[in-house]
Amino acid sequence: MNWGVILAPYKQVVEELKVKLKGMRIQYEYECSHSPIEFITGRVKPVQSILEKAEKKKIPLNNIEEEIQDIAGLRVVCPFVDDIYMVVDMIRERKDLTVIEEKDYIEKNKESGYRSYHMIIEYPVETIHGMKHVLAEIQIRTLAMNFWATNEHSLNYKYKGKIPEKIKARLKLAAEAAFMLDEEMSKIRDEVQEAQRIFHKK
Amino acid sequence: MNWGVILAPYKQVVEELKVKLKGMRIQYEYECSHSPIEFITGRVKPVQSILEKAEKKKIPLNNIEEEIQDIAGLRVVCPFVDDIYMVVDMIRERKDLTVIEEKDYIEKNKESGYRSYHMIIEYPVETIHGMKHVLAEIQIRTLAMNFWATNEHSLNYKYKGKIPEKIKARLKLAAEAAFMLDEEMSKIRDEVQEAQRIFHKK
Amino acid sequence: MNWGVILAPYKQVVEELKVKLKGMRIQYEYECSHSPIEFITGRVKPVQSILEKAEKKKIPLNNIEEEIQDIAGLRVVCPFVDDIYMVVDMIRERKDLTVIEEKDYIEKNKESGYRSYHMIIEYPVETIHGMKHVLAEIQIRTLAMNFWATNEHSLNYKYKGKIPEKIKARLKLAAEAAFMLDEEMSKIRDEVQEAQRIFHKK
Amino acid sequence: MNWGVILAPYKQVVEELKVKLKGMRIQYEYECSHSPIEFITGRVKPVQSILEKAEKKKIPLNNIEEEIQDIAGLRVVCPFVDDIYMVVDMIRERKDLTVIEEKDYIEKNKESGYRSYHMIIEYPVETIHGMKHVLAEIQIRTLAMNFWATNEHSLNYKYKGKIPEKIKARLKLAAEAAFMLDEEMSKIRDEVQEAQRIFHKK
Repeated sequence: MNWGVILAPYKQVVEELKVKLKGMRIQYEYECSHSPIEFITGRVKPVQSILEKAEKKKIPLNNIEEEIQDIAGLRVVCPFVDDIYMVVDMIRERKDLTVIEEKDYIEKNKESGYRSYHMIIEYPVETIHGMKHVLAEIQIRTLAMNFWATNEHSLNYKYKGKIPEKIKARLKLAAEAAFMLDEEMSKIRDEVQEAQRIFHKK
Repeated sequence: MNWGVILAPYKQVVEELKVKLKGMRIQYEYECSHSPIEFITGRVKPVQSILEKAEKKKIPLNNIEEEIQDIAGLRVVCPFVDDIYMVVDMIRERKDLTVIEEKDYIEKNKESGYRSYHMIIEYPVETIHGMKHVLAEIQIRTLAMNFWATNEHSLNYKYKGKIPEKIKARLKLAAEAAFMLDEEMSKIRDEVQEAQRIFHKK
Repeated sequence: MNWGVILAPYKQVVEELKVKLKGMRIQYEYECSHSPIEFITGRVKPVQSILEKAEKKKIPLNNIEEEIQDIAGLRVVCPFVDDIYMVVDMIRERKDLTVIEEKDYIEKNKESGYRSYHMIIEYPVETIHGMKHVLAEIQIRTLAMNFWATNEHSLNYKYKGKIPEKIKARLKLAAEAAFMLDEEMSKIRDEVQEAQRIFHKK
Repeated sequence: MNWGVILAPYKQVVEELKVKLKGMRIQYEYECSHSPIEFITGRVKPVQSILEKAEKKKIPLNNIEEEIQDIAGLRVVCPFVDDIYMVVDMIRERKDLTVIEEKDYIEKNKESGYRSYHMIIEYPVETIHGMKHVLAEIQIRTLAMNFWATNEHSLNYKYKGKIPEKIKARLKLAAEAAFMLDEEMSKIRDEVQEAQRIFHKK
């Protein structure tokens, strides 16, 4: 398999979506209002990880493009929890992509402590051989959720998916601390908005 | 007028088209074939130049978005003259934009010596207030044409559009030298392709 | 005052230090070891903020370059608290800059809850008029400290330095949550390193 | 050999020199004067090319860093021929690098038609293991020279260094056309500068 050629449209999708999502943040800044987006990152899944996922989930190699939904992956990091749902709404309303599936791991977080909002979308991309519809996953989370998830990911990698119980317990405590940080920050956001409402009433 | 807010969608269009056109070049490289694109640049017209153009062409300020077609501007620079027409074809076939108008200043170059292919396109861009259709100009030219045009542009700017006759004559000689360079390079391209054809026949 | 010309060397210093500090992160990744750097940002202080600081601290305009030490500002964000001191050591040992002053607001955090490590450095930069020594401030902090500080900065800006007591109290609670997150994460880092030590002893 | 680790300092040098040379262009723009630099590119020589050069020149693998001088390569592209010598002077005067060797292939161009100014420099770079002195090559040329050289490079690659005589002859004609374009453009530069001198005398 020529992975360079197979993954080229996915690279293109990641680049286009990065520019499109960053555009939302920049437009908020122009209008001098609070931006619900702190930063955006994107990546194409490494070939090694695609092969491992295909083997684990028993996906034949020629079904990869339909059945592995996160070959193209975007991450939107937000300052506050409420901003996440604002970003989700904006993505739902775009005409240049179609939302296929949504999973809310914030309302109902994973056993491990993982919290994030996931959207699977379908995106039409122009290639030198014509138009192609490609799947991509967008993960939306706060800074605290992202910090926790980054560390869990490294540990999972180091322990090949089998994190020792003692460290798992520690990770849960850290997830609670991250959750508390988000909670405290949300209260500040509310205070500020309330202060603004009082101010504008006068 | 809040120019930051007015120009924000144009900035977004320039960023998106830059990524999309660069994508074509990268895909050619993955497939190891000759890329018809050397590099791509883009810019939003400075406010000062928009105002000057509006005044000169007597365009009322609230018609600017419909009547000034190059607020968003992209430039595609190609190695060879034939590559220009290949890029034009690829742009015509894209489903994510609509070609409104084309001007071929290569077949029939301007009095000044200027040569380039111009396309006016309409591009749908998602903003934080919903979708918007925006005009953009794509200029397609060779390296030699680009070099000449860059220098002419500086001189025009310096002399406020009234380049002295003596320098105008010099510019025409330079335009001829640029044209000759493109001609010589085209012959090399033909030689190479012929050599390849002979090779593949064996 | 031509601020464009005055600030040009500072812009250059920010760009050079960004590339140099990013280089440290990339080199760690090549050698496949834990990088103490998560990301780096940089900025030149906006003219408005320079003028406000000069007025507040009664600095005459022609002493600005000697007395305002953070016209060029860099920020290094680290995953763990211990990483901060590792970065501080690496900066101290560089031959291409001189450390002038250090302030540890982590050991002894500010009244507000602010935590970060600050270094003032002197950096020789080549300009088109010859070499020039420029001051710059490097702030080094964890992701949690950075998240808190970003929010405090916005609130300070909104309330023009006079955050209401009620919100100040909330900010302190958030600072404690950020501190706890760092503590929990540090324990995970220790666990992992201990696990590795046990592993290597066998 | 772990090429990732060996080449990491060269990548760093290319990044630092790119930012430093770009800085010169930006500073000229701030001061609103003609910039002698059009654009800058940089690359680390691919491993394959390093190995081929080592074999061809019979350089043992552990002497590579001393004997192959263009592992780190920078290219400065100038609008006019005179700008090249201005850039050369500025590089000679920098205190953050040492010029080791210079070759003027403009005064005395290569048999093939190749024209460019080459400088070999030594640059001290900080790595995570301390300071290291690294060699780099800076090529300085006009847009026309660059265009010609890019095409010659592709042909050399295609024909593995043995370009057929017929195409070689064509390339020489193209080199002459590029030379003429530079000549014509130089005359315009002189005209403009003379016009400015007359203007300022008044």
